[in-house]
Amino acid sequence: MSGPFEKLEVMAPVRIWDGIRAREMTGDGVTFAVVELDGGSTVPEHRHPNEQLGMLISGSMTFRIGNETRELGPGDTWNIPGDVPHEVHAGPDGAVVAEVFAPRRDDWAALDRDQPGVPRWPV
Amino acid sequence: MSGPFEKLEVMAPVRIWDGIRAREMTGDGVTFAVVELDGGSTVPEHRHPNEQLGMLISGSMTFRIGNETRELGPGDTWNIPGDVPHEVHAGPDGAVVAEVFAPRRDDWAALDRDQPGVPRWPV
Repeated sequence: MSGPFEKLEVMAPVRIWDGIRAREMTGDGVTFAVVELDGGSTVPEHRHPNEQLGMLISGSMTFRIGNETRELGPGDTWNIPGDVPHEVHAGPDGAVVAEVFAPRRDDWAALDRDQPGVPRWPV
Repeated sequence: MSGPFEKLEVMAPVRIWDGIRAREMTGDGVTFAVVELDGGSTVPEHRHPNEQLGMLISGSMTFRIGNETRELGPGDTWNIPGDVPHEVHAGPDGAVVAEVFAPRRDDWAALDRDQPGVPRWPV
């Protein structure tokens, strides 16, 4: 990063899952990511040692954390301790979320990236 | 927190500065906060050991980090290393931001809180 400020459209999105990509900032101890989910896309059940806290910004999705499942809309939040299994199903119009991972997701460096482009949000 | 999911309207906002309050989730190593700034409010220059990464969700504000100043709109992000001085001036219609602090802001426990209520965003 060239300075302390950045716009989403200049960040190269990393391909996390099929139909799901993240523009991220990396700190010393955290990754702050804006994750876009295409309509109907799925984050299959998985877990990671990183804790994961986030909020839905736009769209809708169904989120399962451990044994709890919720239908989420803008302003709904989640707080996932490390190693707790979770999965997501995006609504028909997709979703955009802001999330933080700690420790940071250095494992994303191995994933493919798209070229920078216009984000799904803001519209 | 009773579970992994929470809505903004049930979180008691902590009063950070005059006209500026935060609804926060606390993890092991991070605080994830949705910060509301009233129109024309100011975060005076300050610094803290916590790194601070965030994104403007709605509204507008002028952000100074070290010697760099930007006018920000929705989707604009910042990444402030620990102990770097910064200040904010909210635009006339206020602002709502999503931010992460690491380590977490345990110092906020000493601040006053408002009763839970309807957030500025989403509208």
